[in-house]
Amino acid sequence: MDSVRSHLNEYVSTVGKSPIRALFELSFDPNLISFAGGNPASELFDVDGLAKSFAHVMEIAGPRAMQYASTDGEPEMRAAAAQRSTGMGVPTTASQVFITSGSQQGIGLLSQTLVNPGDVVLVENPSFVSALQAFGLQGAEFKPVDTDEAGVVPEALDAAIRRWKPKAVYLIPTFQNPTGVTMPESRRRAVADIFAAHDTWLIEDDPYSELRYTEDQQIPICADPRLDDRAFLLNTLSKVLSPGLRVGWVRGPEHILERLSVAKQATALQTSTIDQLAAAHYLAHTDLQATLDPIRAEYARRRDAMLTGLREVLPPGSAMTEPAGGMFVWARLPEGYDASELVYDAIEAGTMFVPGAPFYVADPDPRTLRFSFVSNTPEVTRTGLERLAPVFRRG
Amino acid sequence: MDSVRSHLNEYVSTVGKSPIRALFELSFDPNLISFAGGNPASELFDVDGLAKSFAHVMEIAGPRAMQYASTDGEPEMRAAAAQRSTGMGVPTTASQVFITSGSQQGIGLLSQTLVNPGDVVLVENPSFVSALQAFGLQGAEFKPVDTDEAGVVPEALDAAIRRWKPKAVYLIPTFQNPTGVTMPESRRRAVADIFAAHDTWLIEDDPYSELRYTEDQQIPICADPRLDDRAFLLNTLSKVLSPGLRVGWVRGPEHILERLSVAKQATALQTSTIDQLAAAHYLAHTDLQATLDPIRAEYARRRDAMLTGLREVLPPGSAMTEPAGGMFVWARLPEGYDASELVYDAIEAGTMFVPGAPFYVADPDPRTLRFSFVSNTPEVTRTGLERLAPVFRRG
Repeated sequence: MDSVRSHLNEYVSTVGKSPIRALFELSFDPNLISFAGGNPASELFDVDGLAKSFAHVMEIAGPRAMQYASTDGEPEMRAAAAQRSTGMGVPTTASQVFITSGSQQGIGLLSQTLVNPGDVVLVENPSFVSALQAFGLQGAEFKPVDTDEAGVVPEALDAAIRRWKPKAVYLIPTFQNPTGVTMPESRRRAVADIFAAHDTWLIEDDPYSELRYTEDQQIPICADPRLDDRAFLLNTLSKVLSPGLRVGWVRGPEHILERLSVAKQATALQTSTIDQLAAAHYLAHTDLQATLDPIRAEYARRRDAMLTGLREVLPPGSAMTEPAGGMFVWARLPEGYDASELVYDAIEAGTMFVPGAPFYVADPDPRTLRFSFVSNTPEVTRTGLERLAPVFRRG
Repeated sequence: MDSVRSHLNEYVSTVGKSPIRALFELSFDPNLISFAGGNPASELFDVDGLAKSFAHVMEIAGPRAMQYASTDGEPEMRAAAAQRSTGMGVPTTASQVFITSGSQQGIGLLSQTLVNPGDVVLVENPSFVSALQAFGLQGAEFKPVDTDEAGVVPEALDAAIRRWKPKAVYLIPTFQNPTGVTMPESRRRAVADIFAAHDTWLIEDDPYSELRYTEDQQIPICADPRLDDRAFLLNTLSKVLSPGLRVGWVRGPEHILERLSVAKQATALQTSTIDQLAAAHYLAHTDLQATLDPIRAEYARRRDAMLTGLREVLPPGSAMTEPAGGMFVWARLPEGYDASELVYDAIEAGTMFVPGAPFYVADPDPRTLRFSFVSNTPEVTRTGLERLAPVFRRG
C-alpha cells in the first residue's frame, strides 16, 4: 500500500501530471478492475469499419493521405464535422469548423488564443481536470460557478460574470465530467439569455451527448444563433468512434478560428491527414446512429450495473448521481470519509476509482469520487464493486 | 497581379500566418509550378508499404490502435525512434525519446516548456520560419548568430552566448532550411565544445539528414555525450516516410521530457495511436535505407536539374548554395533586386518561390529567395524555370 501511495505521490509531485492521468498510468496491472479512466469500451469499437476506411483511403488517395495538408483541416473532414454538429442541433457550415487533433487540442488552442495570465475563467466546480490544466497552463485564474442537480445555476452564472468579468466560461452541459449531470432545456435557454447579454466567451464542451441512454437528445447551448459571435462548441469523434484517431473540431466565429489556426501552425502544424481522411470516409459511409445504438444499449446496461452495485456497496448516508448518458457516476461518501485516502486501499484491493478533489477549483470535497461505468461489463463491474465493499466498510 | 498581391497581403496581415504557409495555400492552382513548399514528392511515397502496416495494425491490434494511449508515445514507436536516432549516430534509449505529432509539435512543446517571455533564443539568420513562430508565440526575443558557408561560426556562437545569455540555441546543422548549408564535422566538434562549456539549451533540428545525396553521413552535434544533459535532438518521419502521419520525436534529458509530457497532456493529450503503431510496424518491417535509396537518387537528379536551371536563369551576379542533401537551394539576386516583389510576377508567370526576407530575425536580405527542388521532376523544374527567366530579366 505504501509503495503505491509513495509512487503516485512522487509521480504527481515531480511530474505535475494530472493525478487522474497518473492513476491511469498506474492502472495497467491487468488484474486491476478500474473504474478510473475515461476510456470508451475497446471491445465495442467498429474495428472492421474503420479498417476498411483506412484501406480505402490508402488505395484511392494514398499519396494525398501521406502528404502535408491544411492546418485548418481537410475539406472532407470539415464538411463531415459540420454535418455532425448540424445533426446535433447546431446549424453549422464547414467554414465555421476548425479540425483539431482531439478536443484536448481544441481546449489548448482556445486557451492559448483567448487567455492571458491572470484572466478569469469561470468553470463548473467540479470540472474536467484536463481542461483546467490547459487553461491553467496559460495562467488562467479560475472562479467557480454554483451548480445544482441541473447544472450551472443561471442566477449564479449571471452574478459571477458581472462580478469577475471573465475572459471565458467553460461548461460541459451534457453528461458532465465528472458529475454526469445534464442541464435541462429550460435552463439552457436561461443560460443562453445570459451569454447573449454579456461580453464573454462561452466554451461549450460536448464530447458525450451522443452517448445518451434515453430518447432525449440534448441540444447544445451554442444552438442559439445569438451566441454565434461569442461561443465555441467542442465536438470529437473520441467517444463515438475512436479516441486513438485524435480527430475533433471547434465550431466558432471564423475570425477567432483564424487565430486558432496561427497557434496550431506554430504548435502542431496540422492534424494527421490519413486519420482525417479515414474518419471522413467512415462518417460518409456509415450510419453512425445505427452503429451507436448497440453501444448505447450496452453502456446503459453497464450504467445500470454500476448504479445497482453502488447502491449496495456505498456506505449508508452516501449520495450519487444517476446520469442519463455519458460515462461517469459521481458519488459522495458520508461525513468523515476521504476518497483520496481510500483510493490506495482500493488499489490494494484490486480496483480503482478517481478521488473527486482534483476536479475542484475551490473548496474541494474530499468525500467525492468518480466512477466510469463504460469500460467494464456488468459482471466485471459487480466483481470490482465487491472488492470495494470492504474498503468502504473500513473507511 | 494586383489581386494576387492584395489577397496575399490581406491574408498575412489579418491572419498573421507564416507568409510561406500563405503562399503555400495560394499555390493550389494546378497549373502553377511551385518551388515554394517544403513537401516531399508524393509520387515517391511508399503507399503500399504503409497501407500494409495500417491494415496489419488494425487486424492484429485494432481495439488498442483505436483506444487512448500514453502521452509520451507508444512503447513500440519509442523503441523504433530510439533505434533510428542511434542509427543516425546518436546512441539513444527508448526512455530518452518523447513521441510528438511531428517535429513542429516538438518545437512547440520545447518553446512552451523552456521559454518565458523576454528570454533570448539564438538562431541562425536566416532560419526555419515555423520554428521562429513557435518560439515567438512564447515571447522569445531572437538574436542572430553569424553563419558562413559551413553554418554557425563557432567564435560568433561563443560570443553571442556570453553576450546574450540565451535560454536556448536553435540550430539546423544539416541541409539547413532555408539555406541548404551543412556544418562539417570539425565545426560540429567546435560547436559541441562551446555547448559543453556553457549553461544553455541546444535544440538541434534534424529533419533532413537522411535525404543526403553523397556518401557522407552527417552525425548530429547531440551525439557528443557531454551534451546529454543540455541538448534536444528533433527527428521526424515526415521527410523519410510521410508528413501526413504526424510522427516525430524529441531526444533529450528525461526530466525535461517529463515537463514536455505535462504540456502535451494539456495541449494535445497524445499522438494518434493508430499512426504510431502503423509507423512502428512499418519501421520494424522495412529496410528504410533500401527504400530511401531510389528516393535519394531521384531527389539528387531533381537538385541537379534545379542547380543547372538556376545557373541559366538567375541574373548575372547572382549567387546560390549547392546543397549536398535536403530540399532547398538558397539564392541571392544581384544588387537592386527584391524577391518579395518578384514573387508576384512569378505567380503571374505560373511559378513560385519563397522570398527570403521572412526567414530572417534581423537584417533581412531582400535579394534572397528559396527554391525547393524535391517536389518537381527535372522536366517540370526546367519548365518552371523557363517561366521564371523573363521575370528575372524584367526584375
